[in-house]
Amino acid sequence: MTSSDNGKLYFDSDYMEGAHPAILKRLLETNPEKTPGYGSDPYTASARDKIRTACATPEAEVFILAGGTQTNAAVIGALLKPWQGVLAAQTGHISTHEAGAIEFTGHKVMTLPQKLGKISAEQIEEALEGWAGDGNRDHMVMPGMVYLSQPTEYGTLYSLAELEAISAVCRRFEIPLYIDGARLAYALACPKNDVTLKDLARLCDVFYIGGTKCGALFGEAVVIPRPGLIPHFFTIIKQRGALLAKGRIAGIQFDTLFTDDLYLKIGANAIETAAAIKAALAEGGYPFAIDSPTNQIFIVLSPEQKKKLTDKVSLSFWENLPDGRTVMRIATSWATTEEDVNALCALLKESAR
Amino acid sequence: MTSSDNGKLYFDSDYMEGAHPAILKRLLETNPEKTPGYGSDPYTASARDKIRTACATPEAEVFILAGGTQTNAAVIGALLKPWQGVLAAQTGHISTHEAGAIEFTGHKVMTLPQKLGKISAEQIEEALEGWAGDGNRDHMVMPGMVYLSQPTEYGTLYSLAELEAISAVCRRFEIPLYIDGARLAYALACPKNDVTLKDLARLCDVFYIGGTKCGALFGEAVVIPRPGLIPHFFTIIKQRGALLAKGRIAGIQFDTLFTDDLYLKIGANAIETAAAIKAALAEGGYPFAIDSPTNQIFIVLSPEQKKKLTDKVSLSFWENLPDGRTVMRIATSWATTEEDVNALCALLKESAR
Amino acid sequence: MTSSDNGKLYFDSDYMEGAHPAILKRLLETNPEKTPGYGSDPYTASARDKIRTACATPEAEVFILAGGTQTNAAVIGALLKPWQGVLAAQTGHISTHEAGAIEFTGHKVMTLPQKLGKISAEQIEEALEGWAGDGNRDHMVMPGMVYLSQPTEYGTLYSLAELEAISAVCRRFEIPLYIDGARLAYALACPKNDVTLKDLARLCDVFYIGGTKCGALFGEAVVIPRPGLIPHFFTIIKQRGALLAKGRIAGIQFDTLFTDDLYLKIGANAIETAAAIKAALAEGGYPFAIDSPTNQIFIVLSPEQKKKLTDKVSLSFWENLPDGRTVMRIATSWATTEEDVNALCALLKESAR
Amino acid sequence: MTSSDNGKLYFDSDYMEGAHPAILKRLLETNPEKTPGYGSDPYTASARDKIRTACATPEAEVFILAGGTQTNAAVIGALLKPWQGVLAAQTGHISTHEAGAIEFTGHKVMTLPQKLGKISAEQIEEALEGWAGDGNRDHMVMPGMVYLSQPTEYGTLYSLAELEAISAVCRRFEIPLYIDGARLAYALACPKNDVTLKDLARLCDVFYIGGTKCGALFGEAVVIPRPGLIPHFFTIIKQRGALLAKGRIAGIQFDTLFTDDLYLKIGANAIETAAAIKAALAEGGYPFAIDSPTNQIFIVLSPEQKKKLTDKVSLSFWENLPDGRTVMRIATSWATTEEDVNALCALLKESAR
Repeated sequence: MTSSDNGKLYFDSDYMEGAHPAILKRLLETNPEKTPGYGSDPYTASARDKIRTACATPEAEVFILAGGTQTNAAVIGALLKPWQGVLAAQTGHISTHEAGAIEFTGHKVMTLPQKLGKISAEQIEEALEGWAGDGNRDHMVMPGMVYLSQPTEYGTLYSLAELEAISAVCRRFEIPLYIDGARLAYALACPKNDVTLKDLARLCDVFYIGGTKCGALFGEAVVIPRPGLIPHFFTIIKQRGALLAKGRIAGIQFDTLFTDDLYLKIGANAIETAAAIKAALAEGGYPFAIDSPTNQIFIVLSPEQKKKLTDKVSLSFWENLPDGRTVMRIATSWATTEEDVNALCALLKESAR
Repeated sequence: MTSSDNGKLYFDSDYMEGAHPAILKRLLETNPEKTPGYGSDPYTASARDKIRTACATPEAEVFILAGGTQTNAAVIGALLKPWQGVLAAQTGHISTHEAGAIEFTGHKVMTLPQKLGKISAEQIEEALEGWAGDGNRDHMVMPGMVYLSQPTEYGTLYSLAELEAISAVCRRFEIPLYIDGARLAYALACPKNDVTLKDLARLCDVFYIGGTKCGALFGEAVVIPRPGLIPHFFTIIKQRGALLAKGRIAGIQFDTLFTDDLYLKIGANAIETAAAIKAALAEGGYPFAIDSPTNQIFIVLSPEQKKKLTDKVSLSFWENLPDGRTVMRIATSWATTEEDVNALCALLKESAR
Repeated sequence: MTSSDNGKLYFDSDYMEGAHPAILKRLLETNPEKTPGYGSDPYTASARDKIRTACATPEAEVFILAGGTQTNAAVIGALLKPWQGVLAAQTGHISTHEAGAIEFTGHKVMTLPQKLGKISAEQIEEALEGWAGDGNRDHMVMPGMVYLSQPTEYGTLYSLAELEAISAVCRRFEIPLYIDGARLAYALACPKNDVTLKDLARLCDVFYIGGTKCGALFGEAVVIPRPGLIPHFFTIIKQRGALLAKGRIAGIQFDTLFTDDLYLKIGANAIETAAAIKAALAEGGYPFAIDSPTNQIFIVLSPEQKKKLTDKVSLSFWENLPDGRTVMRIATSWATTEEDVNALCALLKESAR
Repeated sequence: MTSSDNGKLYFDSDYMEGAHPAILKRLLETNPEKTPGYGSDPYTASARDKIRTACATPEAEVFILAGGTQTNAAVIGALLKPWQGVLAAQTGHISTHEAGAIEFTGHKVMTLPQKLGKISAEQIEEALEGWAGDGNRDHMVMPGMVYLSQPTEYGTLYSLAELEAISAVCRRFEIPLYIDGARLAYALACPKNDVTLKDLARLCDVFYIGGTKCGALFGEAVVIPRPGLIPHFFTIIKQRGALLAKGRIAGIQFDTLFTDDLYLKIGANAIETAAAIKAALAEGGYPFAIDSPTNQIFIVLSPEQKKKLTDKVSLSFWENLPDGRTVMRIATSWATTEEDVNALCALLKESAR
């Protein structure tokens, strides 16, 4: 199943490899040690401290959970009051690919139309004012928080100005802003990005730093800049099945990712290899479905191109277009090799006409 | 934090160390490979096959989740119908230490009094007949399944005869029997145990093979002997936040645990070290709170003994007794060292009077 | 607060008056009798029989609940499996004005764009095929049933041909079709309607016959043509807080509504008075927001018209238009008086310019 | 089905008759009026004012819902935080006969052993301190409120001293005290009762005044003495399917019940008729299962007595005793007639030996 095993290339997603070698090395080194469970070990404590420092929020609460859907459901379920729902882009991960996890917690995902996978401060304001001004609002779900992804499900980025505007709306209406950073390392490493961890900590009420897709075996670190925002979150995490007994396994991973700024650098390889692939695509005249600056590339393939390419390279299906063509996704990661990129670019050249 | 680091001994629980070295070795070897996500990788497939073989259920469905509470909530929530609850011992993990995870899925935990941490076929039958014969039963929660733990939360074991009787009652009333095997390796390695994996597969409708406490970094393997019992369980797992993106990390661990019968042997060290400690306790005249044949030992300490001991060894608090004494738990594991056991036995001798 | 009390007219909704006099008469007559509770009384039995006869479904199960949102949540929550959601028009009552009641049961409302408040067989088919053909479908909510309203929230009607097409799609995909008949009497009495109770019973898996808006004090009668579709629905109704202790109070109302075809005739007054008002509106040149054949009329008012009119007549706010105008709703009912209609028509004439 | 119809007597429950004649009279008088919906009508406003006056809580919020299970689920679900459960007697209605309605809202009912259907301040304190002092408390459900019934499910009464002690414990631990007053009129009319509406309003955080069993067709009035305790409760009520469209029907009933102190007097007939029956039972040597001062009488019948009696009088089954005897309940109500009581007493005399 490795790229070289059967001659096939794999560019399906950014969670196909294991973990960054530095993580495995530390798991190995610490393996025989005995530590208390549930995140009360010294490695998790150290990871928390380093994350607080990286975010310039010395008071922040940090919780490490196992996966993205789990994290979204735990955070959103904990932030919303019974009469509230969460505003999100129609293409937001919680709206589409989490199997109804938010609804399972009893809350509506209130979708807004997206542009390039993003929603705007204006749309959010309009939704909040729409609810507030509706004579039937007490019969309706109140928009009680905002969910964004950075980068988005389409690999695009919110600019600092966009986030500041959204944050300002949320604060004016006194509802929390939550950012899903499943692929955050790829935003942080992107030259077009102008939003730092410190900005996120300043502008959000809760956000999570993705590990699973960014070099860890698993793990997402939830940051709550102002402590006390979610009382008894530990127990809520336990109740939602999201508490790891051997918490240190997650702690060690984030401790490593936040040692020597590894997390800030780990995405660079994905961005660079994606850029090389995008150049090859452009040269080959492949239409892009969306202009995305990070590690996800969305291309439009004719049936022939799709057949030709997917015989030799595994890609993600995205969407069938009415004209018979297909949108496919190419994803690079922190672990993508130059060898695989070269092979893919050669293939793209070959299939271009 | 290692036993030798600060001179303190740690016998708090069986999830204090990392993973069995064979697991780490294979994680390291396979780390650079690319595999598809969500359990569709070849390592998970291999783990499933080996588990099916070990259970003699070639058709069984096997799903690997991350932790015990998560697994219990996903399975029980999926098995119960809206009008049903789950029968469990008052001391069952789902009744006490899962923060209301079952109730969060909308279902009542219907507790029965326990003896040595266990409930009996007679009690279950009585509960089922009680409901069926109650004129108000349509206003009441129907007992819709049975939850047991093997070993129990008190380290005791259901005998084969007991399980057969319970299974027969469940089948007569057509409700599923589910067994939580968080510490199953310690049952399987116990000389007093007469229940095999094959027996579990034959007598239960669903059970899980615990990894977290039995040599894995994390992971619990749910076995559904008769396929199709829980339709769309994959989506339910996703919805409950229990689906791992890099499913292979869990798959590799169970593939290793079920290679060369490692899982059947891994608990032996815990049983042997526990036996040595029990001998030292008996010799020192420490009263046992319960007679438990596996890796958990429950002792009753006077305030002085408690102080003296816990200065030098970390144990789990269990319960305050009305007479001022305290029940404490000593737990051994697959990784407990002879050195630590000897040190503990010496301490126990010293504190005995 | 009566129309004559303060000189103001009330056309806000169809639930402003009490009950049909025949209902009150029977409540009075039967008041001292003693009957068993929870729907096991002879009046409810009689109502059930009459409804079965009216629907030509001698085997149907009939349950009487108190209100519409309650009924929708109980039925939809009982029909859906954990991995499923309900397809509905974006303007469906469950999508907009039930405060997230469906999501509270753990399920997503999967909205489709509407035309005249309706969705089509084609749209439903496309949604079902879209899910079935999506490579990520196991990570997505499966559309597990269809919700329609007859008449719709805009007062429009599904034709028999439309319902037959929708029913055929549902049966092909083996998912239930559920119809919310909160205002069903106004459909049945409308000359443009070609869908009978018998058609509903033949084409739906569950539907409810609205009482609250159609002459009762409260009450909605759920009809399940094929018995056994929802096991233990009585207990689910109890669990959802929807079981009336004095069930006979609801039973007597439906028994009365289904005596001498009262339910089939009770809506006629609303349709006739609405027709008179529509004629006056058309004559006055008021633009209609939608062409609706039943008892709800949606008109577009300029700010001046709105002020002028609403000083003297109470209407329902519907929607602000971008051009500054407002959509308002005029609703008639089984109890609307000729006197009030004449007064309204005079006002409309007066405010027309 | 009336007592005289088939010669059989009915003493099953206190919700067998319709409504107090004064209520029906006012429903009839007001029937043609048009009022706005959802409790915003003048009758509901008047009912609220009268209840506030009766409770001496001019600021209280009052909401009228349809039934008891619905009310309990809406209030408890709204008061509890996600990590909390509700403390209740093992015999509490929410523990036994509400089909898991509380668990459906995601919360555990944490039962305490009862004496005469009651729990004590000491038990509650112990439960709260037990949780607070447990080293594993973050893995456990926190007791987040207390549920009592007045009268209890066994017809017994909390004394003022008992309620004051319980209220003091709740306030010390800062958790709300909620009282289910489904049969409150029978407490208020009982000579042994020393707890007034004003006491309830002073000692509770929420309580409800039962209508269904106390003279109304349906309806329970929730009183929240300190306004603002449950934000957006209107929307929560709607979401839980507990909002009546024609709210005035409930409002008129409570307006009537709180006119001229009807609610304080309406229970007297039940208490007096129960006293007469108890005297006949005592004289006949029937053993009482419990000594209950209100309108529910629990007696123990031998199989022969049971057969003999229930041929001629309909009673409620309560419990089978191990010795073959049965506990049955006799319930009187505001509407019980002298004629029926005399007939019952004659029967009891006859069956006594």
